[in-house]
Amino acid sequence: MTYAVIGTGAIGGYYGSKLARCGQEVHFLLHSDYRYVLAHGLQVNSCDGSFHLPHPFVYNDSSTMPPCDVVLVGLKSVNNHLLPSLLKPLLKPSTLVILIQNGLGLEDDLQKQMPGVALAAGLAFICSAKTEPGTVNHQCYGYINIGNYSCPDQAIVDKVVADFRTAGVDANAVEYHEARWKKAVWNMPFNGMTVALQAQTDHLLAHPSTRQLILSQMLEVIRAAQACGVSNIDATFADKMIYNTEHMTPYSPSMKLDYDYRRPMEIDYLYTRPLQMARQAGSPMPQLEMLEAELLFMQQQ
Amino acid sequence: MTYAVIGTGAIGGYYGSKLARCGQEVHFLLHSDYRYVLAHGLQVNSCDGSFHLPHPFVYNDSSTMPPCDVVLVGLKSVNNHLLPSLLKPLLKPSTLVILIQNGLGLEDDLQKQMPGVALAAGLAFICSAKTEPGTVNHQCYGYINIGNYSCPDQAIVDKVVADFRTAGVDANAVEYHEARWKKAVWNMPFNGMTVALQAQTDHLLAHPSTRQLILSQMLEVIRAAQACGVSNIDATFADKMIYNTEHMTPYSPSMKLDYDYRRPMEIDYLYTRPLQMARQAGSPMPQLEMLEAELLFMQQQ
Repeated sequence: MTYAVIGTGAIGGYYGSKLARCGQEVHFLLHSDYRYVLAHGLQVNSCDGSFHLPHPFVYNDSSTMPPCDVVLVGLKSVNNHLLPSLLKPLLKPSTLVILIQNGLGLEDDLQKQMPGVALAAGLAFICSAKTEPGTVNHQCYGYINIGNYSCPDQAIVDKVVADFRTAGVDANAVEYHEARWKKAVWNMPFNGMTVALQAQTDHLLAHPSTRQLILSQMLEVIRAAQACGVSNIDATFADKMIYNTEHMTPYSPSMKLDYDYRRPMEIDYLYTRPLQMARQAGSPMPQLEMLEAELLFMQQQ
Repeated sequence: MTYAVIGTGAIGGYYGSKLARCGQEVHFLLHSDYRYVLAHGLQVNSCDGSFHLPHPFVYNDSSTMPPCDVVLVGLKSVNNHLLPSLLKPLLKPSTLVILIQNGLGLEDDLQKQMPGVALAAGLAFICSAKTEPGTVNHQCYGYINIGNYSCPDQAIVDKVVADFRTAGVDANAVEYHEARWKKAVWNMPFNGMTVALQAQTDHLLAHPSTRQLILSQMLEVIRAAQACGVSNIDATFADKMIYNTEHMTPYSPSMKLDYDYRRPMEIDYLYTRPLQMARQAGSPMPQLEMLEAELLFMQQQ
């Protein structure tokens, strides 16, 4: 299979480079650091072993890229309005587009704009950052779950999972709705609260009031997920997420990095859309509605 | 009647000085600026007309003060543990103690510590600040509502109201529970949110997301008040509060000033106690619980 990466940043750059290193054909779309990577290649500094791709296939315009079997989308979701035009040149009839992005409603929206395209969700559990041109710093974790949204042939999804495993990436095929909601259980409290209180995950969990608040917000998401038909999730999942977060390296989630670097925050898909879904399902999330309001206010300042 | 003022700050200093100016006998307890006021008197810079008290009765130790008929308490509620010892020398059998403080549960707590003492709540609607020694700056408003909590003789409360009116202060006798809860409808959203988002009242109301959030928090307080037996309040009161706030001078509530000047915030009586009451009455306030958690976290930083 051939791969394209749209958005060669901390996420797309990491997973695409892992595939390319083990011999997969991967075509990278770059933006600001296109010329740098053309000259110097891609560097991955990784806790699992650093490596360098001296001559990756790189592009600064998706219309010059070849159609591929799989497209990995690593764009920030604030740019998803660009996806239909970016994806168009890359599509074959059976191309699978995997949105490795945070939030809920991403596939719903893109499917409406591109009805025939096979979509999947990529849930990345990774601490990585792109701090310099052409360089991905991978600090810890790295596994990816893939949930089939509208691909008529599950075998394609399974083949991607197999390719990731061959490339040394722990990957699994998972149920789409459950996977997106479970990720939201962590993302919704921690992304916003680290911005609202300008604190890392460990500080939020060290203070009893914010620890309780994080738990309470996680339970809001779990109740909403249940109301939206995700049955395989209950309150013990929140305890597990808190335990895991306490035992990982203190962490600034992507939304905090976006805020700190004055980039737009992914409020829409991380908050607004899930809040709408929860309300429609009769299980509103008042504390996460408050967090959304605080983030929208902070974004505007 | 003779008056004592415990806590001669922006509130106690203003109301005590107004009474003293029109000839009432008022004894002021001072702390940091005792020597300054002894030498220079009290200055009130007021939108209703500035004035100076050259030789007020001032003390730096309540045990040297005479027993009085009425004690106005203008302390920050974070210091209320000091009240039993501060009040003891000032009490006659019929002395009325008026807590001009924000929050809920203040009179309950003090009554438990001082069972026989007649208590009332003073609800001050005033923008004032004490920024220099011996000087109160009164920017706008100024009226005070007095709600009888445990004074067996309502005539004493009415006499205080009459004295305030004679002194040019708009005062009214009101029902205790309704008055405390109605004030909480404004205080709970605005005090905390101006701290959490480091913004004045006008900024919070200018952004649609925070305007909606303030309204939603006000409705939480109104539902809790109803659950606690305050019947004379409904959702229209929130609209009225928002309208009034929009039409007043942009304002930093006392909690924001406390936070900005690194003084302890009155989280206990403004949040923790009302949140407990609401929970016990079966009407929890999730967004205000979140706000309490954020404030406790910020206080600790």
